[in-house]
Amino acid sequence: MTEAEFDPGSVRALAFDVFGTTVDWRTGVAEQVAHLAARRGVELDGAGFADEWREMYLPSMGRVNGGERGWAYLDVLHRESLDELLERHGVGAAFDDADRAELVRAWHRLPAWDDAAAGLARLRGRYVVAALSNGGFALLTHLVKAAGLPFDCILSAELAQLYKPDPAPYLTAARLLDVAPGELLMVACHGWDLAGARGAGLRTAFVSRPLEKGPGGGADADVPADVAARDFTGLADLLGCP
Amino acid sequence: MTEAEFDPGSVRALAFDVFGTTVDWRTGVAEQVAHLAARRGVELDGAGFADEWREMYLPSMGRVNGGERGWAYLDVLHRESLDELLERHGVGAAFDDADRAELVRAWHRLPAWDDAAAGLARLRGRYVVAALSNGGFALLTHLVKAAGLPFDCILSAELAQLYKPDPAPYLTAARLLDVAPGELLMVACHGWDLAGARGAGLRTAFVSRPLEKGPGGGADADVPADVAARDFTGLADLLGCP
Repeated sequence: MTEAEFDPGSVRALAFDVFGTTVDWRTGVAEQVAHLAARRGVELDGAGFADEWREMYLPSMGRVNGGERGWAYLDVLHRESLDELLERHGVGAAFDDADRAELVRAWHRLPAWDDAAAGLARLRGRYVVAALSNGGFALLTHLVKAAGLPFDCILSAELAQLYKPDPAPYLTAARLLDVAPGELLMVACHGWDLAGARGAGLRTAFVSRPLEKGPGGGADADVPADVAARDFTGLADLLGCP
Repeated sequence: MTEAEFDPGSVRALAFDVFGTTVDWRTGVAEQVAHLAARRGVELDGAGFADEWREMYLPSMGRVNGGERGWAYLDVLHRESLDELLERHGVGAAFDDADRAELVRAWHRLPAWDDAAAGLARLRGRYVVAALSNGGFALLTHLVKAAGLPFDCILSAELAQLYKPDPAPYLTAARLLDVAPGELLMVACHGWDLAGARGAGLRTAFVSRPLEKGPGGGADADVPADVAARDFTGLADLLGCP
């Protein structure tokens, strides 16, 4: 594939991945898991549990995109993965239905990375900035509100009823924002997401999140993209946003 | 229909109509029409023209909801009405395609009513607040951003491919916000919108906008609703938002 040279002036809107790219899911989920486990008198390594839970994320969405099952909200996939994981750890009996619902909601309230709000505010001065995540519309609305992130609008794979990296959510985002796919810049810290965006004709920005999976956790690095930045304020610098 | 007594505590999210309720379409469109007409050396009463244009709004959407035609974006309906209106005034020759596109975009940048931003900010402290308009998703995103209105998210009839007052946009909004229809409060200054919302099972708040259609222009008054307020800050008072 021959990459056309990237011209920041051709970009009219930015779409941001959320889990990992904008918010620190690992710290947030780990703390909430550890907290509830302690209340239930169960020993669980919160961070390790969060990592295992997240590892089930892409496969669970792949079953929707592959047509093995119809559309299922991310909360439903998270719940199924959680049920399986609690059994695997032999602690299923300690968590009732309400506990499990609370754990699923851990993904609804997660801390933003330190640079996220400030970087978005600068980028928003020049571009339309949208959240574009596999999280559901309501989940994202609550998450973005609680974290105080200044997005112009919320977009979600739910609106396409298919998950990233299928082309549908990227193209739905471009259509709703009334821009051509090549005028939309997808910002993410994951190679699989940017590859999906590129395949749909979007431009891509890689932001590194070295601590996404913990120290030494193997966060994506050196991902092919039109531009690469250390964080959201670095991206604002690169795109010339005051 | 027996109205259940309204309990503000049962409301989990607020959906706001935009044209007329949140922004002053008449002043905004009139100024932009008058400005372009002057540049083209044509005499046009901007406010009168805006009124006539707006009068074609409900009938044009009715043809989509009634199945006479498939989904058509509000910009398309606005353009068709504009073309007809310019001919009616005998000034069609003065406005080329670019002029007409510019006039359609007048509906994308409109001034907010004075109380809107402050009222929304207070309401947002307690509730999820969404824009829910017949304007398209991109149109609303641009309009809300330019006017500096602190909505948590943008919703649009475009997501349902049917226009208010059809039940579909109201129910789509509730579904995406993950609330029951009865937990969503529709805020509008138009009786037809609140009647549609009520028919879909939403709760309703009437906000009066006596100048929406100009002095003596016949803005809706005394519309049946669960609550009525003089403006958005009055609504924040009524709902106990500090």
